[in-house]
Amino acid sequence: MSKIPVTLGIDIGGTNTVFSFIDFDGNCIKTGQIPTRGQEPAEKLVKRLYESIEKSFEELKSLYKRVGIGIGAPNGNYFRGTVEYPPNLNWEIAPVKELIQQYYDMPTAITNDANAAAIGEKVYGAARDMKDFIVITLGTGLGCGIMVNNQLVYGADGFAGELGHTTVFPDGRQCGCGKRGCLETYASAPGICKTVLMFLAEETIDSLLRTIPPAQLTSKMVANAAQKGDPIALKAFNYTGRILGMKLADVVAFSSPEAIFLFGGLAKSGTFIFEPTKKYMEGFLPPVFRNKVPLLPSALKNKNIAVMGASALILNELKA
Amino acid sequence: MSKIPVTLGIDIGGTNTVFSFIDFDGNCIKTGQIPTRGQEPAEKLVKRLYESIEKSFEELKSLYKRVGIGIGAPNGNYFRGTVEYPPNLNWEIAPVKELIQQYYDMPTAITNDANAAAIGEKVYGAARDMKDFIVITLGTGLGCGIMVNNQLVYGADGFAGELGHTTVFPDGRQCGCGKRGCLETYASAPGICKTVLMFLAEETIDSLLRTIPPAQLTSKMVANAAQKGDPIALKAFNYTGRILGMKLADVVAFSSPEAIFLFGGLAKSGTFIFEPTKKYMEGFLPPVFRNKVPLLPSALKNKNIAVMGASALILNELKA
Repeated sequence: MSKIPVTLGIDIGGTNTVFSFIDFDGNCIKTGQIPTRGQEPAEKLVKRLYESIEKSFEELKSLYKRVGIGIGAPNGNYFRGTVEYPPNLNWEIAPVKELIQQYYDMPTAITNDANAAAIGEKVYGAARDMKDFIVITLGTGLGCGIMVNNQLVYGADGFAGELGHTTVFPDGRQCGCGKRGCLETYASAPGICKTVLMFLAEETIDSLLRTIPPAQLTSKMVANAAQKGDPIALKAFNYTGRILGMKLADVVAFSSPEAIFLFGGLAKSGTFIFEPTKKYMEGFLPPVFRNKVPLLPSALKNKNIAVMGASALILNELKA
Repeated sequence: MSKIPVTLGIDIGGTNTVFSFIDFDGNCIKTGQIPTRGQEPAEKLVKRLYESIEKSFEELKSLYKRVGIGIGAPNGNYFRGTVEYPPNLNWEIAPVKELIQQYYDMPTAITNDANAAAIGEKVYGAARDMKDFIVITLGTGLGCGIMVNNQLVYGADGFAGELGHTTVFPDGRQCGCGKRGCLETYASAPGICKTVLMFLAEETIDSLLRTIPPAQLTSKMVANAAQKGDPIALKAFNYTGRILGMKLADVVAFSSPEAIFLFGGLAKSGTFIFEPTKKYMEGFLPPVFRNKVPLLPSALKNKNIAVMGASALILNELKA
C-alpha cells in the first residue's frame, strides 16, 4: 500500500514553536510543540525541533510520508530563506530554511505569519476560489498577506505587506519601528488599548475600564467591556474601525481585491470591530469600489491555523 | 522577403486619439492622429480611426504586417475590453475592444493610461530588468500602474491602481470622484495649483503667482515661478512632495517595489517635485525599506509615450 503524503507545517512563535503533519485535504494528522527559547541561537531551536518532529513522526511513518516543509515565522523572508530581526527572538538574521534542510532533504519554504495566513486561506479556507484577496492579521502588530492573480506578493525584497507601518498621522503614536503614527499603533490589540487610554483622558463618562491599570489592559478586556455596553470601549472600537476602515479603503483602491479577511486576536472581537471597520471603509472608498469588497472572518477557525498556513505554503508549491 | 511585424498602439485621449505602428524594438514607424470628439458615440470614433489607420498603413503594407493592437484609454478595463465612464468622454460604458475587433481580426487588448505607461516602461523603457515596480502619472489626475512579479496588477475587477483616490485628509479638498481629501486633489497638476492658492491665503509673502487669476494658473507656471525662486511656488512643491512622499511610502511598505517612476505633466517639473517627494518618502518609510527604492523619471521621454505603452500591452501578450 502506498503511503499517504503529508506536509510538515511549522509555526515559529515568540514563545512556542508548533509543528503539524497535515494531509492534502488540510487535516492535521498530528501536532506537537516545543518552547522557542528565542534567546538561544536558531541552530539550537532547529536541532530540538528535529528531535521532537522525529519522535512525533515515529508512529506515523508506516502510514504517511513527508513530502515538503512550510515554515511561518515573524519576518520570515521567502526569497532568502531567512528570519530577519524577528521582534521577539534574539536572532538577527537566521538562515532557517538552510538549517531545516540540513536535517531534511525535501522542498522547503518560509514566509511570514501573515503571508502564511493568506496562503492558508487560499489552499484550505474561504479563498479557494479567489485570485485576488488580502488577509489582515490584527494581533500584537498588524500583518498583511496579499494575493494577486493567485500569487503571494513578496515584492522586490520579500518584505511586501507592511501595511502595519503605513502612516495614519504623521505626528501620531510612537511605533516600535521607530516611526510615529503607524497604522499598527491604532489597529492592533495594543493599539485599541492605547485608544481606550486616550478616551479615558478626553472624556469624563464612566467606564469599567477606569479601574484597570494600563499595563494590564488587553483587547479582550475592551471587547468584554463593549459587550456590557461600556461607552469608552464602544468609542474605542468605533475609532479603531474608522482608522482601519480608512486604510483598508486605500488598500482596495490600490489593489482591488475580491475580499479582505480579518484575522487574529483583535478580529475575535467580532462585530465590534467588523461593523465599524466595514462602515468606514465603504465611506472612504471611491464610488467604483463601493459594496463590492466583503470584509470576512478567516474560515480557518481553529488553533492550528498558523501551521496550516505554513503547510499551505509548501503544498501550493508542490502542486504548482 | 518576409514582412516586418509591427503592433498598432492606440491612445484615446480627451481631445485627440493617436495611433502608431511600432516595431518590436520600440521604433514608431509611422504615427497619426484624429480628433476624439468625445461627445459622439465610441462607434463613430472607431470607424474614423479605422479609416485613418488604413490610409496611413497603405504605404507601409509592402514592408510591414500588423500583428496585434494595444489600446490605452482613461478607465480602460482590461478584463471587459471596455472604457467605463471616462472623465472627458460622453460614453458611459463603451465596448471599445469589441468595436476595434469588428475591423481587425487580430489580438487586441485595452487598459488605462497608467497601466499602459507601466507596461511601456517594462517593454521599452527603464524597467526592462525589473519584476516589481510602480508608475505614477501626475497629470490632470493621479494614475498608477502596478507591476508585481512581471505582471500588471488589474485586481478583481480590473480597476486596481486607484492610488489617486486614497485618502490624505478625511475632510480635505473636494475630489471629482465625490469623496474629499483624495491624493490627486494634492498631487496632480491641478492639485499643486490649489496648494498655491492655499499658501497665497495663508502667507503674506510676495509671489509672482499673486497676479495670475486662479482659473488660469497651471502647474507649468508654478514650476516656472519656482525656477525663479518664488517662495510660494517653492512652498507648494515642498507641500506636494510631502503628501506624495507619505503616500508613496505607504505604497512601498505595502507592495515593496524595486523602483517608482514619476511621469506626466507635474513630473516634468523635475527636481522641484522629485527632490521633496524623495526626501519625505524616505522619512515616512519603515527603516527596512529606506534608501532602497529609487524615484525615477520615465525613460520613455518622447511625445509617443502613450502609444508606446499601448503597443507594449499587446506586444507583451504576443511574447508571452
